[in-house]
Amino acid sequence: MALSEEQKTIIKTASDKTFPFVERCEVQTLEVERGYCKMLMPLKPNLNHVGIMYAGALYTIAELPGGTIYLTSFDTKRFYPIVKDMSIRFRRPATTDVTVEVTLSEEEISRIESTTEETGKCDFEWDVEIKDANGEVVAITHNVYQLRKIGS
Amino acid sequence: MALSEEQKTIIKTASDKTFPFVERCEVQTLEVERGYCKMLMPLKPNLNHVGIMYAGALYTIAELPGGTIYLTSFDTKRFYPIVKDMSIRFRRPATTDVTVEVTLSEEEISRIESTTEETGKCDFEWDVEIKDANGEVVAITHNVYQLRKIGS
Repeated sequence: MALSEEQKTIIKTASDKTFPFVERCEVQTLEVERGYCKMLMPLKPNLNHVGIMYAGALYTIAELPGGTIYLTSFDTKRFYPIVKDMSIRFRRPATTDVTVEVTLSEEEISRIESTTEETGKCDFEWDVEIKDANGEVVAITHNVYQLRKIGS
Repeated sequence: MALSEEQKTIIKTASDKTFPFVERCEVQTLEVERGYCKMLMPLKPNLNHVGIMYAGALYTIAELPGGTIYLTSFDTKRFYPIVKDMSIRFRRPATTDVTVEVTLSEEEISRIESTTEETGKCDFEWDVEIKDANGEVVAITHNVYQLRKIGS
């Protein structure tokens, strides 16, 4: 079930403007499809005191796809997501804007949704590579989220 | 070697205003001593779309003591720190301002500084409990930093 162009625009805007912390970082949701997003964290507003991207901004751009993928994939009237655990390993300084891409398969979307429907909740997880403008991996994360049924 | 009141004021200000990302979150460095800091992340500027503190703000307040403890403990003309790895486990929603406290012993300060002096670098690590205003632990992190010798 592909997203319409209108749905994509709504999700991009919702992702970029979801709350002030994200707006302040000037996050950009570049592309969305069902089960997919590509998001960007700009360098300039997120520089630290030594002229590289702050660790907290790198963490943030790796965490945010959890909410965006949720919007592309799940019934937002019946389910909501939480973040449970995350680990981040820093490999090299980020000296450009950075991007992340996350994909969730149809099989995984079905598994998560049906398990949540049956039991009230379901964990899901993925790895994220944070890449700089040259395609170099600056950090790697492992993210664990949980989908929950509203009202259960 | 205790810090003077003047040194404490300088470190607190440097920590709170270190770069725009931190200023935008309105982080407050409440107390510093040699090998110790207590820092606060306010709820209001860091609320997410469901009215709890955003995960990225929780991550940030657990990461920042790395720099602040460095300022209280090490010779900033000879050494600088980097963050290598961090994991964060979320236990419950944060619905108040949150605080963290980190302590680094004199023995550990000596070990890190002498190893860095000899080999050019030295890892150090600690756990952080992020607590809400009622003293409840909302998240737990494990942080790995590395001290490096300038110019090596």
